[in-house]
Amino acid sequence: MTIREATAEDVPVIMELIHALAHYEKASHEVLATGEDIKHSLFTDHPTAFCHVADENGKVVGFALWFLNYSTWLGKPGIYLEDLFVLPEWRGKGFGKALMKKLAMIALERGYERFQWWVLDWNQPSIDFYKEIGAEAMDEWTVFRLSGKALQEFAKE
Amino acid sequence: MTIREATAEDVPVIMELIHALAHYEKASHEVLATGEDIKHSLFTDHPTAFCHVADENGKVVGFALWFLNYSTWLGKPGIYLEDLFVLPEWRGKGFGKALMKKLAMIALERGYERFQWWVLDWNQPSIDFYKEIGAEAMDEWTVFRLSGKALQEFAKE
Repeated sequence: MTIREATAEDVPVIMELIHALAHYEKASHEVLATGEDIKHSLFTDHPTAFCHVADENGKVVGFALWFLNYSTWLGKPGIYLEDLFVLPEWRGKGFGKALMKKLAMIALERGYERFQWWVLDWNQPSIDFYKEIGAEAMDEWTVFRLSGKALQEFAKE
Repeated sequence: MTIREATAEDVPVIMELIHALAHYEKASHEVLATGEDIKHSLFTDHPTAFCHVADENGKVVGFALWFLNYSTWLGKPGIYLEDLFVLPEWRGKGFGKALMKKLAMIALERGYERFQWWVLDWNQPSIDFYKEIGAEAMDEWTVFRLSGKALQEFAKE
């Protein structure tokens, strides 16, 4: 098992993993991104996001896609994990944990103090896994989103 | 009232606002950032975060500090609001709304489709305000964080 940085050649398999995760989250219809979008965002001089893949003998079986957030209290960036997914037939072998550990190591090496992500409340297997590795549920916070028509209307109001 | 991009000269007042917000959130002891940290993060060639301030005749009375997040479903960045704060004696005059509107306009201009943030569950005045401007509470998601000792232990495990 190798955890490595994704390259532009991985874009097709990254797209497959993004679609597979959206399907798992019951939101397949919400994936509008194309391979070109992903390539343009991740594999340029100043990437907006970063990706590591779990590679088993040349086959990519999982991915972690992340970006840098920022804490004004710490005065430094942190890691925000946007997507973590391992193909169903490759679960239970430690790929997910190895991907998480890779990001935790990057955080530590760079002196970041926080590694964060969100999880869907019904996704108990993931919640159990995250608690097992020492993560804390920040139940006192709620995510708010302004998007689509509401965003347009508010901006133009 | 002017909403403008913050500059390096605003760092002292940005620090005051960060401390005032932390006090409001009952977490004053958690502010470890120095003015140098903020300057280094916000006012360089490739900033990690961005800041807009509400300026009333040369006095900064509020701020919005934000960064770019990333959606794999949309294949594009969005705006994540880390801090929004208006000094207590300057509330109820529309400064907070004007700051939010500025960020909504930036999102729209750049073709981003999401503008997001978190709010503490007990902060009812803010929750009411966010709902009023059309934002949606994403109650089905919980934020997880791996930090401090737990982060170190997991990375080295």
